[in-house]
Amino acid sequence: MFQGGYMGKVLRVNLTTKKVSVEDLPEKIARDYIGGAGFGVKYLFDEVPGDVDPLGPDNKLIFAPGPLSGTSAPCASRMAVTTKSPLTGAVGMSLSGGYFPVELKFAGYDVLIIEGQADTPVYLHIRDDKVAIKNAEKLWGMDTQITQSIIKQDVNDHNTRIACIGQAGENQSKMAAIINERRAFGRKGVGAVMGSKNLKAIAIRGSGQVPLANPKAFETARKFMLEAMKQSPVLYPEFSKLGTPMVVDATSAMGIFPSENYRNTGEKDYSTTIGVEASISRNKGSEHCYGCPVGCTQLKLAQGRGYEGGMSDPEYETYYSLGSVVGVESVDSIIYNDMLCDKYGLDTMSVGVTIAFAMELFERGMLTAADTNGLDLRFGNHQAVTQLIEEIAFRREGMGALLCDGSRIMAEKVGGEADDFAMHIKGLELPAYDPRGAKAHGLNFATSYTGADHNRGYAFQEVFGIPVPNAYDRFAVAGKGWLTKWNQDIRCATTDCPTMCGFLMDMAVPAIAEQNTADLVSSVSGIALTKEDVGMVGERVNNLARVFNITAGFTRADDTFPKRIMAETLKEGGSSGQRISQEDLDLMLDEYYEARNWRQDGVPTRQKLAELDLPEAAAVLVARGLL
Amino acid sequence: MFQGGYMGKVLRVNLTTKKVSVEDLPEKIARDYIGGAGFGVKYLFDEVPGDVDPLGPDNKLIFAPGPLSGTSAPCASRMAVTTKSPLTGAVGMSLSGGYFPVELKFAGYDVLIIEGQADTPVYLHIRDDKVAIKNAEKLWGMDTQITQSIIKQDVNDHNTRIACIGQAGENQSKMAAIINERRAFGRKGVGAVMGSKNLKAIAIRGSGQVPLANPKAFETARKFMLEAMKQSPVLYPEFSKLGTPMVVDATSAMGIFPSENYRNTGEKDYSTTIGVEASISRNKGSEHCYGCPVGCTQLKLAQGRGYEGGMSDPEYETYYSLGSVVGVESVDSIIYNDMLCDKYGLDTMSVGVTIAFAMELFERGMLTAADTNGLDLRFGNHQAVTQLIEEIAFRREGMGALLCDGSRIMAEKVGGEADDFAMHIKGLELPAYDPRGAKAHGLNFATSYTGADHNRGYAFQEVFGIPVPNAYDRFAVAGKGWLTKWNQDIRCATTDCPTMCGFLMDMAVPAIAEQNTADLVSSVSGIALTKEDVGMVGERVNNLARVFNITAGFTRADDTFPKRIMAETLKEGGSSGQRISQEDLDLMLDEYYEARNWRQDGVPTRQKLAELDLPEAAAVLVARGLL
Repeated sequence: MFQGGYMGKVLRVNLTTKKVSVEDLPEKIARDYIGGAGFGVKYLFDEVPGDVDPLGPDNKLIFAPGPLSGTSAPCASRMAVTTKSPLTGAVGMSLSGGYFPVELKFAGYDVLIIEGQADTPVYLHIRDDKVAIKNAEKLWGMDTQITQSIIKQDVNDHNTRIACIGQAGENQSKMAAIINERRAFGRKGVGAVMGSKNLKAIAIRGSGQVPLANPKAFETARKFMLEAMKQSPVLYPEFSKLGTPMVVDATSAMGIFPSENYRNTGEKDYSTTIGVEASISRNKGSEHCYGCPVGCTQLKLAQGRGYEGGMSDPEYETYYSLGSVVGVESVDSIIYNDMLCDKYGLDTMSVGVTIAFAMELFERGMLTAADTNGLDLRFGNHQAVTQLIEEIAFRREGMGALLCDGSRIMAEKVGGEADDFAMHIKGLELPAYDPRGAKAHGLNFATSYTGADHNRGYAFQEVFGIPVPNAYDRFAVAGKGWLTKWNQDIRCATTDCPTMCGFLMDMAVPAIAEQNTADLVSSVSGIALTKEDVGMVGERVNNLARVFNITAGFTRADDTFPKRIMAETLKEGGSSGQRISQEDLDLMLDEYYEARNWRQDGVPTRQKLAELDLPEAAAVLVARGLL
Repeated sequence: MFQGGYMGKVLRVNLTTKKVSVEDLPEKIARDYIGGAGFGVKYLFDEVPGDVDPLGPDNKLIFAPGPLSGTSAPCASRMAVTTKSPLTGAVGMSLSGGYFPVELKFAGYDVLIIEGQADTPVYLHIRDDKVAIKNAEKLWGMDTQITQSIIKQDVNDHNTRIACIGQAGENQSKMAAIINERRAFGRKGVGAVMGSKNLKAIAIRGSGQVPLANPKAFETARKFMLEAMKQSPVLYPEFSKLGTPMVVDATSAMGIFPSENYRNTGEKDYSTTIGVEASISRNKGSEHCYGCPVGCTQLKLAQGRGYEGGMSDPEYETYYSLGSVVGVESVDSIIYNDMLCDKYGLDTMSVGVTIAFAMELFERGMLTAADTNGLDLRFGNHQAVTQLIEEIAFRREGMGALLCDGSRIMAEKVGGEADDFAMHIKGLELPAYDPRGAKAHGLNFATSYTGADHNRGYAFQEVFGIPVPNAYDRFAVAGKGWLTKWNQDIRCATTDCPTMCGFLMDMAVPAIAEQNTADLVSSVSGIALTKEDVGMVGERVNNLARVFNITAGFTRADDTFPKRIMAETLKEGGSSGQRISQEDLDLMLDEYYEARNWRQDGVPTRQKLAELDLPEAAAVLVARGLL
C-alpha cells in the first residue's frame, strides 16, 4: 500500500487489558495529516472525548514520528506525543528529538497508541514485532537517567532507546515531562499522563529501514534543503556553535526577554550575566540528534560549590525559566537545575515560571515564611530554586504540593488576587518572549491549541527578522491575525507533522519550507502532495485541534493574556512603551478569526470545516449545539 | 601458540609518544601467573622500579582479566588493575567485575598496559584491532556516569563498555577510583594514577570469543563448580537475595563491625539501624556481572528529603565506611553517599574512614570549626559526610585538600598525635572487620601486599566458620601465621588471577577451589596445571609483590596495626576483652614469615625465591644489598 516513508502500521497497547495489537495506518490519514502532530491530533480527536479526565484510563498517549523520520532527510529526528493535557485541559502535544523517535519507525510503526491504565508499574519493550509489557516495580522511584541505564542492562542491549518518566511523572505533577536520554517531550504534563497509566518507560530497538518511494526525487529535495541550510546566515556560522542560548542576547536587546515574573519592565538586562558570553564559557561541546548536520545542543558543565560537576544542555527557554524569570544570574545554577529537571522529569519552563510566581507572591507577602517552611523565596535565590525543584518532583507537603500542578492550579489554591501574577495562558506557563514587544508572537501564545506555546506558530519575522529584516513591525497590532494564522499553519505542516526540527523553520528555510516539505514527503511516500496540500494540512490540524478544545470547554475568552501583560507597560529597553490593551487583543483576535474563517466566538465555520474535509469536526460541534 | 583461554596478546599504549603496539603474551608468564593480578604484579615488577613517583609518567596502569574471563565459567567476570599506588606507595592492585573486563578479551587482549602521560585529556577507544587515542577535553570535569553516556553517544555504540575516572581522579585524590558502570576498581588510588596520565576513560567493544582448548573437560569442571555453588548453604538461599549487606548483622554479632573510628569498643550495636533488616526495605532488585548466576548486587533506592531518588548498590564495606565508622545510622544517607562516591569516582572505604578520622579529631578539638569552615563534624552527621565527599572530589581548599589524599597524609598535615587515631595500614584505610576479634583476618591486613586489604587473604574460617564452623578460634594468636599465608596464596591463585569472584571463595567453594581452578584453567588454556601448580602461583605472586614493596622501602615495621588496635581493648559485645598486643603481633609475624620461609625481617629467602622460580626478584634484592 504505502510505497515509502510510512511503515503503514499503528501499534496499539492497552495497559488495562494488556492487549497488544497492530492495525493498518489508513492512507487517507497519511495524506491528510502527514504524520507527527497531525497523526496525534487526528487520533486524539477520533478516540478521546474532549471532556475525559486527563489522568484517567480513558485518556491516551499517542506517539508519532513522521514520514521523514528515520530517512536521511536532515533534522527529521523528531516525534510528537499527543494527549489531553492535565495542565491545560486542551490538546497536549509535545515534540522531542534525539534517537528514540526514529527507533519506532525502524521497529516498523508510524504510531504508538497507549491506552488504559496498568494497575502496577510496567514498561513497554518493543523489538520490531516483539512487544512486551514488562514489570517495572523495581524502576518505580528511580530518576530518568538511572531508569534508562537499568533498562538497557535488563534488556541486554544498550543501543535500545528509551523514553521514560522520573519521579515527577510518577507523582503526576502536571508539569512532568517524558525524557529520552537528556531530551524531553517537555511541556503540558505529558509525563503525568504516563505516570497516571503506571507506565514508567518505553524501550524500543528496531532493525528495519524506512523505504523511499522515489529515491532520486528524494535525493534532489534533500540536496536542495541541505543547500538552503548552508546559505542560512545563522544556522552554521552561529547556531551550530552557540545553540539556542544565543537567543538570550537577541531578545534582551529587543526588550522581550522576560524577567522576575515579568515585573521587571526593561530596567534590568540579564544578558550581561546569563547571556551567550557568560554561558559559552561553560561549553563542553555539541550534541546531534539523529540525522542532524547542525548539532545545536550545547553541553555545559557547571562550576562552583554546590553546582560543580552538574552537566546539562539548557536551551534558551531555560535561561529564562530557571534564570531571568526567577531573577537568577548564576549560569551554573541554571545548568545544574536544568539537569535536576531532566533527572526528575520536569518541564523546566513551567517549573521556573511557577517558581517565579511563588517568588512574587512571597515578596508581596501573599506567601509567608510559614507557607514556605522557612525558605527565603526572594527573586534571585537560586538555592531556593534547586530546593523547590525537588519539592515539586516529589510533590512534598507544603510548597511541593502547592507548586507541582503549575501556576493556574496554584493560583486557585492561594486564592484572592494571586492569579493576577500567574503567567500562563490556558494553564500553560508563558515562554521566554514578552508578548508586549512581539505582537504576532504573543497572539500565537493566545491562540495556540496547546496554550502559551511559542512552538506552535513562532513569529520568526518578528524575533529574527527572517526572511526580510523589518518586514514586519513587531509592535504593530494590525496584520498580526493573518501573520499568526500563516505561522501556525506552516509551522504545523512543515515542522510538527513531517516531522522536522523547528529551528530550521525559524532560522533557515521558511520561504521554501512548504515546497520543500511537499517535495520531501512526496518523494519518500509516493503520495503526491503540492505546496498547497501541505499548507492545508497545517490548517486542518489547527482546526481539528481547535474543535477538540471547544469540546473540552474552551472559548474565545480563553484566547487571552495574563492580566499583567494587559495592565502594565514596558518602561525601558528595546520595547519601551509597549503593552497589549484589551482593544489590541480584540482587534488581533477578530482579525485572526477572520483569517481562519472562524466565527467571532472562535468556533470554526461549517464552510471552513467542509473545505478542510473535516466532517467529523462539524458533526461534533453540531451535536453540542455549537454549529 | 595458545590453544585457548588466552588471546595471546598484550596491548601497550604509550600516552606520551601516542604509540600503540601489540606484543605476544609469553606462555611462561601465562603458566607462572595465570592472569589478572598475577599478570599485573609480574608486569609491574618487570617494568616499574619500586621507587618511581606513582603520579609521574614512569608509573604504569596494567589492566588484566584472566583466562576464565569471557568464558562461560561462572563468576569469572573480573579484571585486575595494577600500578604503584599513590595512596600506599606499595603495589596497588584493585579488581572490578561487571561487563567492562570481558570486553578486553573479546577485543583480543589479555593485558592492557598504559604508560607515559598525555599532555591534554584523552580517552582510549578499542574496537578489536582498532585502537585510538582520542581527545577528551570535553569530558574533563564530568562525572563518571555522564562520561560513560557521552562516550557511548560519541562512538555511536551504547554497547561499548567504559571504565573512567570522575572529578576525584582528575584532581588526583589518592582515594580516587576507576568506575565502570556503577562498579569500581575502588581502592589504592588507581583513579589518581589514571588522572595523572590525563586519561579520562577507556572504552572497549570486542567482537571476538574466548577459545576453549578442551571444551569437554571445561564443561565437566564448570558443571562441578555450578554444583558446588548450589550446595553452598548461603550462596543462593541468602547471598543472592541479600548480597554483602547481610554481613553487617554477622560481624555485628561477632563484635567486629567497627564504628565511630573504632572508638566504640562494642557498647553500641549499629546492626539495628543499618543492618540487613533496615537496608532490605530499600531494595529494588539485583544486578549480575557477566556470566554470574548469583547476582549479589542489590540496587537500593534512598528515601526521604535530601536523599530521595538516590540509587546505588552499597556493599557491606560501605555500610561501615559511610555508616558505622562515621557514626551514621541513616541507611538512606549511605545509599546516597555511595552514589556520590561512584559519581565522583571515589573509594567509599578510604573516604569514609578518612572522614571518621576527621570526626574524631574534631570531637577531640584537634580540628576546630575554623578548620572545617563551620562544618559540624560530630559523628553521625550524615549531611557533613555528603558535603565532605564533594569537598574531597574537587580537592577544595580547606577540608577537601586536607582529606583528599587519605588518612596517612592527613595525619601528617595535622601533626602531633593525630596519627594515633588514623585507621590505616601502609596508608590504606582499614576494612570493616576489627582485627582484634578476628586475628588471622587482621594479620592479613597487616601483611597484605596492598596494605589493609581484606580481599587479599580473607579469613573466611574466622568470619563465616567455613568450611567447618569453629574449626579456628578467631581470638587465638597461635597458628594464624600459617592460616594467613594459606588464605593469601589461595585467594590470589583461585580468585585474583583466573579471575574469579572472591565471594565464591568466601562463601561457597574454598575446599575445592585449588583443584577447580586447576581444572578450569587447564581446560580453557590447554596449559596443564595441577592443584599444586595453582597454589604455587598464589605464593609466587605474593612473593614477587613483597619484593616490589621492599624495593619501594617497606620493612617488617610496616606490617603492623594502627595504634588504637594495639592500645585499646574491646569492652563489650561478641569480641569483648580482645586486643592485639605488640607481643601478639610479633608472635603472629614470626610465624607468618616462617610459614612463608621469609627471614624474620620480612625479606623472602634466597631459597624461597629459587623455589618459586623468581630469579628476577632475587637479583633486585641482591642489587640493593638486601639478600
